[in-house]
Amino acid sequence: MRSDERYQRGIAQLEKMHGSAVQAMVENIQALSPDLARLTIEFPYGDVVSRPGLDLRTRQIATVAALTALGNAPVQLRAHIDMALNAGCTRDELKEVIIQMAVYAGFPAALNGMAEALEVFQARDGTGL
Amino acid sequence: MRSDERYQRGIAQLEKMHGSAVQAMVENIQALSPDLARLTIEFPYGDVVSRPGLDLRTRQIATVAALTALGNAPVQLRAHIDMALNAGCTRDELKEVIIQMAVYAGFPAALNGMAEALEVFQARDGTGL
Amino acid sequence: MRSDERYQRGIAQLEKMHGSAVQAMVENIQALSPDLARLTIEFPYGDVVSRPGLDLRTRQIATVAALTALGNAPVQLRAHIDMALNAGCTRDELKEVIIQMAVYAGFPAALNGMAEALEVFQARDGTGL
Amino acid sequence: MRSDERYQRGIAQLEKMHGSAVQAMVENIQALSPDLARLTIEFPYGDVVSRPGLDLRTRQIATVAALTALGNAPVQLRAHIDMALNAGCTRDELKEVIIQMAVYAGFPAALNGMAEALEVFQARDGTGL
Amino acid sequence: MRSDERYQRGIAQLEKMHGSAVQAMVENIQALSPDLARLTIEFPYGDVVSRPGLDLRTRQIATVAALTALGNAPVQLRAHIDMALNAGCTRDELKEVIIQMAVYAGFPAALNGMAEALEVFQARDGTGL
Amino acid sequence: MRSDERYQRGIAQLEKMHGSAVQAMVENIQALSPDLARLTIEFPYGDVVSRPGLDLRTRQIATVAALTALGNAPVQLRAHIDMALNAGCTRDELKEVIIQMAVYAGFPAALNGMAEALEVFQARDGTGL
Repeated sequence: MRSDERYQRGIAQLEKMHGSAVQAMVENIQALSPDLARLTIEFPYGDVVSRPGLDLRTRQIATVAALTALGNAPVQLRAHIDMALNAGCTRDELKEVIIQMAVYAGFPAALNGMAEALEVFQARDGTGL
Repeated sequence: MRSDERYQRGIAQLEKMHGSAVQAMVENIQALSPDLARLTIEFPYGDVVSRPGLDLRTRQIATVAALTALGNAPVQLRAHIDMALNAGCTRDELKEVIIQMAVYAGFPAALNGMAEALEVFQARDGTGL
Repeated sequence: MRSDERYQRGIAQLEKMHGSAVQAMVENIQALSPDLARLTIEFPYGDVVSRPGLDLRTRQIATVAALTALGNAPVQLRAHIDMALNAGCTRDELKEVIIQMAVYAGFPAALNGMAEALEVFQARDGTGL
Repeated sequence: MRSDERYQRGIAQLEKMHGSAVQAMVENIQALSPDLARLTIEFPYGDVVSRPGLDLRTRQIATVAALTALGNAPVQLRAHIDMALNAGCTRDELKEVIIQMAVYAGFPAALNGMAEALEVFQARDGTGL
Repeated sequence: MRSDERYQRGIAQLEKMHGSAVQAMVENIQALSPDLARLTIEFPYGDVVSRPGLDLRTRQIATVAALTALGNAPVQLRAHIDMALNAGCTRDELKEVIIQMAVYAGFPAALNGMAEALEVFQARDGTGL
Repeated sequence: MRSDERYQRGIAQLEKMHGSAVQAMVENIQALSPDLARLTIEFPYGDVVSRPGLDLRTRQIATVAALTALGNAPVQLRAHIDMALNAGCTRDELKEVIIQMAVYAGFPAALNGMAEALEVFQARDGTGL
């Protein structure tokens, strides 16, 4: 498959996950580096997350768990909590995933992950979504 | 609830997740430290994973994702891949979660997680389970 | 022991470690998630830190060392530096622990840990404590 | 560009970096997961490391530094030390990079990285390469 | 060699790497802890980075790669991106190193590293350097 | 102070901490890299751990806590558990520190740290020490 097909599939996948927020998100990364923006759209979204074999809700559970456990990517954790809600995860389910990370990565990781989640929830309430 | 109730609930939860392998697992941790064994049964299993609000399959997806991403707990990753299969995850779903971690924690984490998964799959094949 | 006994023991332990700041701290975590707040009081404080076998000063040395080395939980590091001072650690002892982390986790971890320590010291000076 | 072009470019890049060892390396990853093997050839080698703008020697310096600092991927660190030697880095240069990681990630990371390097050096001496 | 010789060599090395910004940098660390400031000058700069065997440009490539991959030291990453530019690395080379870290430490590490790089580039543009 | 004074002070400090095992330990590191061996003796032992302001027992508590939490340096964790026992820590105190790390770095870190501790205890029992 041609690279621009991967790019288009990545954008389509992002739109499925992020709705109308995609354009601003892509522009933010392009402002950092057009090359990294293209790779971010092609590989994570065009090649991996768009694979069949796992529904989007389950994929977002996995990503929220991993980013909470790693604890050093709050910007991306917030974006993926937002996308998890878009994919049909409930707020309570995401809180439950984050609480579970206290077991595997310690309480600071869980507490900080929960603070990021609350920030996302409040931003959505503010916009009525 | 009394502490021995938490302990019993933890053991019951472990049996639900780990079947006949629980006794050997508990004895292994008790040989390290009876106190840490008791806390491991009471908190992760008695207090957290046994909470309602998330089905066991989803909980195991989250744990396999986190331990693959952290990359420094192969013993526990293997145990949780095994419990994920017990909880109804398919081998292909777990491989998909591990592949996805290449995006969030890098290819070495995904490759090493996949090697642990394969070891679990082969051990189960060897025992016919 | 019943769960509310663990909770009460956790609160008592927190008051011993954190004095009059406990109520605000607990309310902050409850605002994130009442469930995670309860688990944080019951397990770290009610089950672990309240165990005999290690004095509070030594426990706080261990926690400040670990959080400095991990380097991704500045909020919790500041809280534990504060509790370490309450437990009788001197500022110079804590600086010494943080300097030592340069050996085991690198200079960025030590420099960032020291910056958090200074922030705690200045906040206490500002309140005359 | 079509996906099989990326795959071929990835294989070509791997052959440039890894010489006659590529076939065994690819077969090892395919045995874990054909899908992860394909993604590993296409993205790291076909998309990223084959980019112009940085010579291969510099790329391998960066990767050896990062994997030494992360400290949880010894298999991949050994493979990249080997590829760094193939790319023209000297043993002394790689030792120097690893020593430098003591500053940024602590002495355990540097000591463990050095042990992996020595293992690679000895394997090459054993085969006369 | 006497300790004040190491200190002087460290300062000289820092001046070579950081130019006129050294005094402010040293004063910032001294304000945290005079002892940690002295150790930071003596060991990383006086003992390690000043060693022969690796040119400064290569050393900075290694450090930018490692700090991007670790992902928990943004202050130090920005300082070393700045020093890498002083050592002759181009902006495009540093972006290339950071993009490569997506492979070994995941996309969040690369995206966050790129954001720090952009901040450094903009600060230099602002001062005309 | 001259460099060979730092080296001698480092060796003296190591002998105080490691007794008759020092020579083998130093030779092991020298076999990896004479330069890294010298830096390891001069900086961690000659410059940092030999500083006044913190007794050796407290220093070892901090190091065991940090290495357990980081979870990627089992060789060094075992060495420091051994040195902690030499410095007067009891086995129960070290187990307590390791259990406490379940709170701050998760249960896998604590369980793996405990397994390393048990290995050290058994090796000492085997030699009657």
